[in-house]
Amino acid sequence: MSAADSSFNQNLCVILVRTRNPLNIGAVARAMANFGASQLRLVEPYDVAFREARSAVGAGELLANAELCQSVAEAVADCTLVIGATVATNRSASLPLITLPEAAPRIADAAQTGKVALLFGSEKRGLANEDMSYCHWLVRIPTTPQSPSMNLAQSVVVVLYELARSWEQAPATMKSEAVPAADLPAKMQSLLRLAEVIHETLESSGYYSEAVAASSEEQLRRLLLRMKLTEADSEILLGMFRQILWKLRANPSE
Amino acid sequence: MSAADSSFNQNLCVILVRTRNPLNIGAVARAMANFGASQLRLVEPYDVAFREARSAVGAGELLANAELCQSVAEAVADCTLVIGATVATNRSASLPLITLPEAAPRIADAAQTGKVALLFGSEKRGLANEDMSYCHWLVRIPTTPQSPSMNLAQSVVVVLYELARSWEQAPATMKSEAVPAADLPAKMQSLLRLAEVIHETLESSGYYSEAVAASSEEQLRRLLLRMKLTEADSEILLGMFRQILWKLRANPSE
Repeated sequence: MSAADSSFNQNLCVILVRTRNPLNIGAVARAMANFGASQLRLVEPYDVAFREARSAVGAGELLANAELCQSVAEAVADCTLVIGATVATNRSASLPLITLPEAAPRIADAAQTGKVALLFGSEKRGLANEDMSYCHWLVRIPTTPQSPSMNLAQSVVVVLYELARSWEQAPATMKSEAVPAADLPAKMQSLLRLAEVIHETLESSGYYSEAVAASSEEQLRRLLLRMKLTEADSEILLGMFRQILWKLRANPSE
Repeated sequence: MSAADSSFNQNLCVILVRTRNPLNIGAVARAMANFGASQLRLVEPYDVAFREARSAVGAGELLANAELCQSVAEAVADCTLVIGATVATNRSASLPLITLPEAAPRIADAAQTGKVALLFGSEKRGLANEDMSYCHWLVRIPTTPQSPSMNLAQSVVVVLYELARSWEQAPATMKSEAVPAADLPAKMQSLLRLAEVIHETLESSGYYSEAVAASSEEQLRRLLLRMKLTEADSEILLGMFRQILWKLRANPSE
């Protein structure tokens, strides 16, 4: 089946943030194998959890190849679309929230031209607001209001099932269509570098008061994600702000 | 959302056959709660597994109300459609095998007029051939050929997610449409009673050789399931065979 399609696999990346339970990591790995996804990244997992999960049955290769990351920023660096999984009660108000059946075709579509990250938070708390500031939007599995919160590995398997299905249904022409490099969506690492330079520029310009500086970094990231920049445009903006920053630092106003 | 719809819940029944692992029973219960299903039946679960699962967090009421059954026949008695979940490698050749995306609308449709049983086998072996002889057809989650076998609770959650979605999409008129009682599909208990009487009749008539008697019971069940009898027709047939059986016994040929 097409879920085993190499581009589906190459362009889809499951990222688990601060997972505690080794059984969940193992179950996620098995679910990924079932639906032809193999790129697993773990952000700050509990050491014990990761070691125990690696020794579990059935998903050896996938876990052996799992990447350990120090931060969400590092884990999403090469991705062009970052989706956070969440229940409705635990969402960042400023991000669009899309239910899985609607989200899946859009994710499958994006996975044809760039790498898509699916971000899953810890068992107890889900994704933190700071994690979500790296997300373009959020996806919600339509569970009942009486019992909305799913087991971590079960939410992963439902998302992967739906994605594999959407991928299968996507027109074959779409899958092979070449997109001009300039029109490709910006990679997260380009956007995060741009955000950093803009942030420094704003600091140098005296835009920030001390109190808001930290939350402003998150706001800036979100603004850039909403803009849906191409890789080329992100490079142009980076050049502009580097020049402005250089000028500000060369001619301090006082 | 509509998955919490009372008729979805009333007419859907998850049956776990010979489950070994208490964590799986607990995870199934949680998945059911997430998608608004509450009828859980356990056929010959390992005692320890069931006791431990009952003490697990989060799905208390659902597990407390779970029904323990001695046999598959007992578990499916009040159902009009029985679907077995299976991986492609472990199937009974004589049963139709339908992938989940195609199966879900049919199941949702059937659940509008009668109770549907979803049968899941044990972690190691899945459903036995005898279990499958109680199934109208089999459903398969489209996993990759390289790693087809899913975790039990994960396969349950994927099936329930897809069913809840199909139920939501079913036209509202369809859901409330009244079906004349005579046209309702036969309940499994009627079919199994009919199968028993036909079996006795065939025995009395000398139809069976000793060697095939056991497998013939399964074949007979499958034949009756393929016929898609209504409740009324099953009653008519039962009357006919009872009469024949009475006659055979009253006038033995030797």
